[in-house]
Amino acid sequence: VSVSLGELAVRFGCELRGNPDTSIERVAPLGNADACSISFLVNSRYRQQLTETHAAAVILDAASAPYCPVAALVCANPFATYARIAGILNPPPAVPPGVHATAVVAESARVDPSANIGPLCVIGERAVIGARAVIGPHCVIEDDVRVAEDVRLVARVTLCHGVTLGPRCLLHPGSVIGADGFGFAPEARKWVKVPQIGSVRLGSDVEIGANTTVDRGAIEDTLLEDGVKLDNQIQIGHNVRIGAHTAIAACTGISGSTTIGSRCQIAGMVAMGGHLDICDDVVILGTSMISHSITSPGVYCSGIPFEEARTWRRLVGHFKRLGLYAERLKKLERRAGDPPQQEEAPEQERHDD
Amino acid sequence: VSVSLGELAVRFGCELRGNPDTSIERVAPLGNADACSISFLVNSRYRQQLTETHAAAVILDAASAPYCPVAALVCANPFATYARIAGILNPPPAVPPGVHATAVVAESARVDPSANIGPLCVIGERAVIGARAVIGPHCVIEDDVRVAEDVRLVARVTLCHGVTLGPRCLLHPGSVIGADGFGFAPEARKWVKVPQIGSVRLGSDVEIGANTTVDRGAIEDTLLEDGVKLDNQIQIGHNVRIGAHTAIAACTGISGSTTIGSRCQIAGMVAMGGHLDICDDVVILGTSMISHSITSPGVYCSGIPFEEARTWRRLVGHFKRLGLYAERLKKLERRAGDPPQQEEAPEQERHDD
Amino acid sequence: VSVSLGELAVRFGCELRGNPDTSIERVAPLGNADACSISFLVNSRYRQQLTETHAAAVILDAASAPYCPVAALVCANPFATYARIAGILNPPPAVPPGVHATAVVAESARVDPSANIGPLCVIGERAVIGARAVIGPHCVIEDDVRVAEDVRLVARVTLCHGVTLGPRCLLHPGSVIGADGFGFAPEARKWVKVPQIGSVRLGSDVEIGANTTVDRGAIEDTLLEDGVKLDNQIQIGHNVRIGAHTAIAACTGISGSTTIGSRCQIAGMVAMGGHLDICDDVVILGTSMISHSITSPGVYCSGIPFEEARTWRRLVGHFKRLGLYAERLKKLERRAGDPPQQEEAPEQERHDD
Repeated sequence: VSVSLGELAVRFGCELRGNPDTSIERVAPLGNADACSISFLVNSRYRQQLTETHAAAVILDAASAPYCPVAALVCANPFATYARIAGILNPPPAVPPGVHATAVVAESARVDPSANIGPLCVIGERAVIGARAVIGPHCVIEDDVRVAEDVRLVARVTLCHGVTLGPRCLLHPGSVIGADGFGFAPEARKWVKVPQIGSVRLGSDVEIGANTTVDRGAIEDTLLEDGVKLDNQIQIGHNVRIGAHTAIAACTGISGSTTIGSRCQIAGMVAMGGHLDICDDVVILGTSMISHSITSPGVYCSGIPFEEARTWRRLVGHFKRLGLYAERLKKLERRAGDPPQQEEAPEQERHDD
Repeated sequence: VSVSLGELAVRFGCELRGNPDTSIERVAPLGNADACSISFLVNSRYRQQLTETHAAAVILDAASAPYCPVAALVCANPFATYARIAGILNPPPAVPPGVHATAVVAESARVDPSANIGPLCVIGERAVIGARAVIGPHCVIEDDVRVAEDVRLVARVTLCHGVTLGPRCLLHPGSVIGADGFGFAPEARKWVKVPQIGSVRLGSDVEIGANTTVDRGAIEDTLLEDGVKLDNQIQIGHNVRIGAHTAIAACTGISGSTTIGSRCQIAGMVAMGGHLDICDDVVILGTSMISHSITSPGVYCSGIPFEEARTWRRLVGHFKRLGLYAERLKKLERRAGDPPQQEEAPEQERHDD
Repeated sequence: VSVSLGELAVRFGCELRGNPDTSIERVAPLGNADACSISFLVNSRYRQQLTETHAAAVILDAASAPYCPVAALVCANPFATYARIAGILNPPPAVPPGVHATAVVAESARVDPSANIGPLCVIGERAVIGARAVIGPHCVIEDDVRVAEDVRLVARVTLCHGVTLGPRCLLHPGSVIGADGFGFAPEARKWVKVPQIGSVRLGSDVEIGANTTVDRGAIEDTLLEDGVKLDNQIQIGHNVRIGAHTAIAACTGISGSTTIGSRCQIAGMVAMGGHLDICDDVVILGTSMISHSITSPGVYCSGIPFEEARTWRRLVGHFKRLGLYAERLKKLERRAGDPPQQEEAPEQERHDD
């Protein structure tokens, strides 16, 4: 694919500084670009690299433009513009419509003629596959699943019975949508399985990472709204609801029946308890333990940065002696004639269960 | 499926308050139930919803029964009774016996005539598949695996060579039982692979969640006893032993050679070290780091609930200065004429390695 | 397989104490070995077991040799020697070359005649499969993948387009190499997908655990050097680089664009931030949060060992009151006439972002 700079400028509403006829064939990082490449500058920290680039052109904002030694596409959001231009220069491979001879498709399934069903897929009874959907190799689509138009399942995706996917969802290999939630009733020191009879509904433009799992609801549906983005190896429990355009990074787990608002950003390896309410526009930093609901937008965390092991162990020793230290502090105060401090219940005891 | 209230009462030993002929077709939550639905009340916090329900009947305990505006099935354990009734109203789809034409079954494998082998399964040499077992699409069952009666592999389950499953095990998509444990011997600053020659044995009624992995033993077998329940994305290292009816929530990892007792409840994203002994009836809360053995039943944890980021960072700052604070405290005490405190080694240094 | 003690001694350069003609058929743990088994002693803690063993012979070091009641193979590194001997006694099953009739192989793919392609594999256009490679059942190998000689994909491995594997790599079931990295540009409170146009390159002798995911690079490649060992359920973000012979335990996540040196040992459930540099020979203990770069070899950690829940909650209460305690300490000091302490910015605020 080759596009002229002028065409890119017009198409994405950029100010072009340079020759509009310059031909662009690929994207490349600043330090590695050649005369056929377009690069981008998102962070002014990298201006030094900018001044040394051999790219044909660079996508950047007005503040950095004066430092650009080559042609420039100037715009307000260089990263988003880069993303779109990279998409044009790297189109997904064209997939011809049709059902591969080795796919096993139930008679009652309805596959749109423009859809592609890859080799060795299994499509269950009454499943519906929408227009231009691409179902990669080795996908398992159980009975009564509905896949909307322009969905892409890369490969080896499992959609359990009754799951619904909105338009343009993109699911990566190994993801499992609609496995049973973890529900058991204790009885006589054993467990009775609670049938998981809800399903999972994904809105439009949802992306699900490799080996991520989204459980079906216990009695009502698990729900991911439009534009939700999940990274790899995330676990979403039964009856969770995630609001539109919320993004979650890898290895995070959301326990059952928790509701997360829209436009939240949740970092990696966060552990979120069950039955919580997280409001819109919340940012949670990596490795946080979210044990109670959040009612105000803001930034939240609970991770403690590491230390060299010997230093850390001393700190942990002090931590474990905190009760003792508090006693000794109180004793000194008493002796100094201070009025006794009111020992209010620690914050966490109020919301931790 | 449709069942009368009277039949349900008799079958599950409930006291029926209401018309035994009422026909029940489905289960539904209190707030969403109609005249064909049965609902349930487990937590008296939801009594308000109970008083407003439109369900045909509600499963509840004697204490809540007086508040029920509709028919009631009164019993000691409403959640377990709900689970059983939901199971009757939502039976798993009937699967006819037989081997799908696209399955690849080794000649020396023995598949019970009442079992079902789904499309595109691979069954290895000398594998044994028991009566009424349902092997869903895309399962890989390697050589010498033994699957007992009434096992169900939902789809895309991998059982590596020599793995044994007891009756009624239920395994969800993407689970991998019997991959190599992580064993390497250091030599000359490289790693020599230690062959993993044990296998994995699962007792009866074990449930394994989506994308959960249970490694084969290094030299003896990894063992999950009867009724163990594992949620999604759990990692069980080689030579782990888990006692009967222990349940583990999602994203938890158990390192190699650790033994866990019976009836333990381990929450999500717990990290358990290797070579530990955890006794029966231990409860571990979410995100705990279990670095040493536990010899008494009880509740254990090590997670710190989150704060707003600015507050949290101040707390971490104080934490990192704890050594300094302890010094200053000691100095004040010395000046006040206190005898020096005996600084015993902090708890953790004794068992942390 | 059966080997004489003498042959083992010669082959692995051990000093043999005992009859060289003794025939060894298998490996077994000290407590469970019989007259056809060879066992090993790695840790002098188990010397009591050594004195009671019924093994034919034991692999151990010179210091433990005097305590051995049976024949001994004495060497400097008994664990590595054990690993090699166990490998000889438990050879992987011989796999005849050839392409299974049910595999779907693109016409332009080049499969070495000595390679084995298992049942129901899918091999994409222009893929290259090297000599003696074993591609187990249900693997998906997309277009333009290059698999070097002697690679083994156990089963159900996904290699996305353009991925490259060096000689002797071993990948376990459910692993996904080359899925899209998690890259989105924010725009108008939504996300624009950033095409992930790099790929993944694995050096020689890399081992990848079950359900582990290694993302393709955003613009350049993700890179795992020779001899890297990854356990199960690890997540490697886009553009990560891992140096030779580094080993990482299960459930750990490495965020995008982080570089890890050679010969590092990273324990389980570690969360490593993005864009960091970790130097060679770093050891990181389990559950650590690595939020900034590491420039000196050493041991690092940030996990706090658990306590009984009541004790722990008191400690957390004290932790949350640390600001208050610091104030009270300062007040006492002021009253005692101490000069005010300089409250330096806490360590973590300097490197945490």
